[in-house]
Amino acid sequence: MTTVRVAGVGLTHFGVHPDRTARDLFAAAGLAALADAGVPRADVEALYYGNFIGELAEHQGHQGPLMAEAVGVHAPASRFENACASGGTAVRQAVLALRSGAADVVLVGGGERMNNLGTAAATGALATAADDLYEVRAGVTFPGAYALMARAYFAGLGGDREDLAHVAVKNHANAVPNEYAQFRREVTVEDVLGSPLLADPLSIYDACPLTDGAAALVLVSDDYADEHDVEAPVAITGSGQGGDSLALQDRASLLATPAAERAAAAAYADAGITADDVAVAEVHDCFTIAEVMAVESLGFFEPGEGIGAARRGETTRDGRIPVNLSGGLKAKGHPVGATGVSQVVEMTRLLRGDHPNSDAVDGTTGVTHNAGGTGATAFVHVLEAVA
Amino acid sequence: MTTVRVAGVGLTHFGVHPDRTARDLFAAAGLAALADAGVPRADVEALYYGNFIGELAEHQGHQGPLMAEAVGVHAPASRFENACASGGTAVRQAVLALRSGAADVVLVGGGERMNNLGTAAATGALATAADDLYEVRAGVTFPGAYALMARAYFAGLGGDREDLAHVAVKNHANAVPNEYAQFRREVTVEDVLGSPLLADPLSIYDACPLTDGAAALVLVSDDYADEHDVEAPVAITGSGQGGDSLALQDRASLLATPAAERAAAAAYADAGITADDVAVAEVHDCFTIAEVMAVESLGFFEPGEGIGAARRGETTRDGRIPVNLSGGLKAKGHPVGATGVSQVVEMTRLLRGDHPNSDAVDGTTGVTHNAGGTGATAFVHVLEAVA
Repeated sequence: MTTVRVAGVGLTHFGVHPDRTARDLFAAAGLAALADAGVPRADVEALYYGNFIGELAEHQGHQGPLMAEAVGVHAPASRFENACASGGTAVRQAVLALRSGAADVVLVGGGERMNNLGTAAATGALATAADDLYEVRAGVTFPGAYALMARAYFAGLGGDREDLAHVAVKNHANAVPNEYAQFRREVTVEDVLGSPLLADPLSIYDACPLTDGAAALVLVSDDYADEHDVEAPVAITGSGQGGDSLALQDRASLLATPAAERAAAAAYADAGITADDVAVAEVHDCFTIAEVMAVESLGFFEPGEGIGAARRGETTRDGRIPVNLSGGLKAKGHPVGATGVSQVVEMTRLLRGDHPNSDAVDGTTGVTHNAGGTGATAFVHVLEAVA
Repeated sequence: MTTVRVAGVGLTHFGVHPDRTARDLFAAAGLAALADAGVPRADVEALYYGNFIGELAEHQGHQGPLMAEAVGVHAPASRFENACASGGTAVRQAVLALRSGAADVVLVGGGERMNNLGTAAATGALATAADDLYEVRAGVTFPGAYALMARAYFAGLGGDREDLAHVAVKNHANAVPNEYAQFRREVTVEDVLGSPLLADPLSIYDACPLTDGAAALVLVSDDYADEHDVEAPVAITGSGQGGDSLALQDRASLLATPAAERAAAAAYADAGITADDVAVAEVHDCFTIAEVMAVESLGFFEPGEGIGAARRGETTRDGRIPVNLSGGLKAKGHPVGATGVSQVVEMTRLLRGDHPNSDAVDGTTGVTHNAGGTGATAFVHVLEAVA
C-alpha cells in the first residue's frame, strides 16, 4: 500500500488579522507549502480543506474551489467539517485518498477567520459544534462545557486548578520561540490563577484565544516522491478516527474521552506502534483540561495521572514526552479549521529538525490529536521520520 | 482493488416537513437503508454525511456525530460540504475510503432542512455557495446566475424557453409514480411558459423547489458482501470529481461546465466505460438549463444539442437515454445535502429493478451527476448492475 509522505508544509502567522480574508490567509499558507515541497502546482490533483464557521464568519460556504483558486491550483476541491476537528478530517480523508490510489499529490489545508466576529458572536458560532436542541438552548457554550468536564475530573480523579495552570505555563513557554504563535510570552502559575474566571474552575488563561490563520500540507505518495526526487523525510504512517455522542449528557462518563481512545487505538494499529513508541505529541488543548484528558486517552498516562503531568515536568520540553512543543492551541492559537492541519505541520517540522523546538525531540515518532466539540469527534495521526 | 457495492438504500419523502428536524429526517432514511441492506448496525465502521446549510437552517454544525447517533450507529462520522454537491462529496470520499481498505461497511448520508427558513432566508443561505465578495455582494443569487447561463447558451448555442420547458415537463412526468417525490403531478409546456418569471429567461417552473429530506446508502466492499452473503446487485464502478473557478466571471466561458466534463472523464476512465455505454442518468437539474448543460458535459449530446433533447424525446422515458427518471431535482425535490446521495439511491433502484420507472431502463450502466454552485464543483459516479 502507498505510504503517505509530507513533502511540504506552510503556515500563516496565527493571530489577529483584521485586514485579511480567509482566502488571503489560505493563499499564503498554501503557497508556502507548495514552495516548501518544490512540487509544481500543476501536479496537485486535489485540495482537501478544513473549515468550521465560514458560513457564519464570512457568509462563505463552498470554500473548496475558492481556496483552490486562491493558490492557483485548478484541481477538484472539497471542504470538510467536524467542528474543531475539521482540519483532522481533511488530513485523514486525504491520507485515505492517496492510499486508495485516486491521487499521488494532494494539497491539504485548513483555515478560519474568527476575530472579525468579535468574542460574543464567535462564541455563538463555535457553539454550533454542540447539540443545538439539547445543549446550546440550555445555555451551554464551550467554556462552560469544558468547565463541567474539569469539575467532574477533579471530583472523580483528583487534581486542582494549579495543576491545570501548569499546562498553560508549559505551552506558553513552548510558544516563545515559535515565529507563527499568537502568544510568544511566558506566563506564571500565579498569572493563570489570577486571571479572570471564565467558567469555574477555568480562567481566561486556561482557554485558547480566538485566532485567524491558515495551515497547509503537500502530501505525496512514496512512488511520486521517489520518481520526482522530492525530499519528504516524514511519513504519515497511521490515521485513526473515533466518534462519540455529540451531547455531554449522552456520554457514559465525563472522566474520559473514548473517541480519542478509539482514534489512538486505530492510528497506533495502523502504524504498527504502541503508545510507548511515541516520543512527542501535539494535542488539542482548547482548554487546559482538554490536554490532560488527551494525554490519558493517547495512552501516555493512566487515568488520574494526566492532570499532574505538566506540574511534574513529564510533558515539558525536557520531560519524558514533550506535549505541544508548538505552544498548542493555548499559546500558538486555534484558527479552528486550520488546527488539525497545523498540528501535522508542526510535527513535521519537529521531526525533520527545522522547528525551533526540534532539539527537545528525542525520537523519530510523533502523534497529533485533534478533537471536535467536547470530544464527540477525534483524529489521531502518527508521523515518523523516515529518512 | 475493492469493488464498492450498494447494499442498501433509504429515503424520506422529499417535501415540506415543518415538524421534522434534520436529525429526524436522517434517522428515517438511515434506518431504512440499514433495513434494506440487512447489515447489522454494529458492522458500520463510519458515517459519511453531506450537508450544506445546517449552521444557518438549524444553528447546527458538527452534524456527523449527531446523525450517527440518530441512527444508533456508534462509529466515526464526518460532514462533507461542497454546496449543492455536498452529497456527492460524501459518496466519493466513502468510495475512496472503502477502496483504501480503511473500512468494509460505511453508511453514506445526506440531508437538509430548508423550508423552516422561508424562501428569502433560504435563498440567502444557498447564496453562500457563490463567491461572497465578488458575486453575492453584487446581487447574484442562484436563479440569477443560472438565468445568466441560460441567456449565454441561447445566444451562443441556440434554443429558447420552450426547449427548457420540455425539460420540466419530462421531469414532472417522471416524478408521478415516484412515492418519494415532492411534485407528483404533470405539467404542460404552457404551464411552464405561463408561470411567473423568476429571472429572465427562467420561470418558477424552470426551478427546483425548497425541499426538506434525507437520503442514505449502505456501501460495502465486495469481500464483505461475499463473506456475509449480502445481496448487493449494484456496484459503484467509477467516481470522478471536477473543479472550476467559484465565480462565474472567472470562467473561460458560460457555455459549458468543464468541472462536469472533467468529473465525467475521470469517472468513465475509472469504470472503464465511455459515454456510449451509459443507458440512464440522474443529473443535477436545479434549473432546467442545468440539465441541458449536464447532458452535454456528460458526453450524451454535442454542445448545442442538449437544449433540444427533451423536446425531441431523446431523454424522456422512452428515449435513447432517459434522464432523471426519478423526477430530478426539479420535481422530486432538492434537499441540498441529500441530493448527491439520493441520486445514487434512485439509480440503484432503477438498475436493480425495484423503481417504479425501472421498466424504462434498457441497459445495466447508469451515471449520476451532482453539481455545486454554478458548476465550480461536480461529481460523476458510474453504477453498474453486477448480479
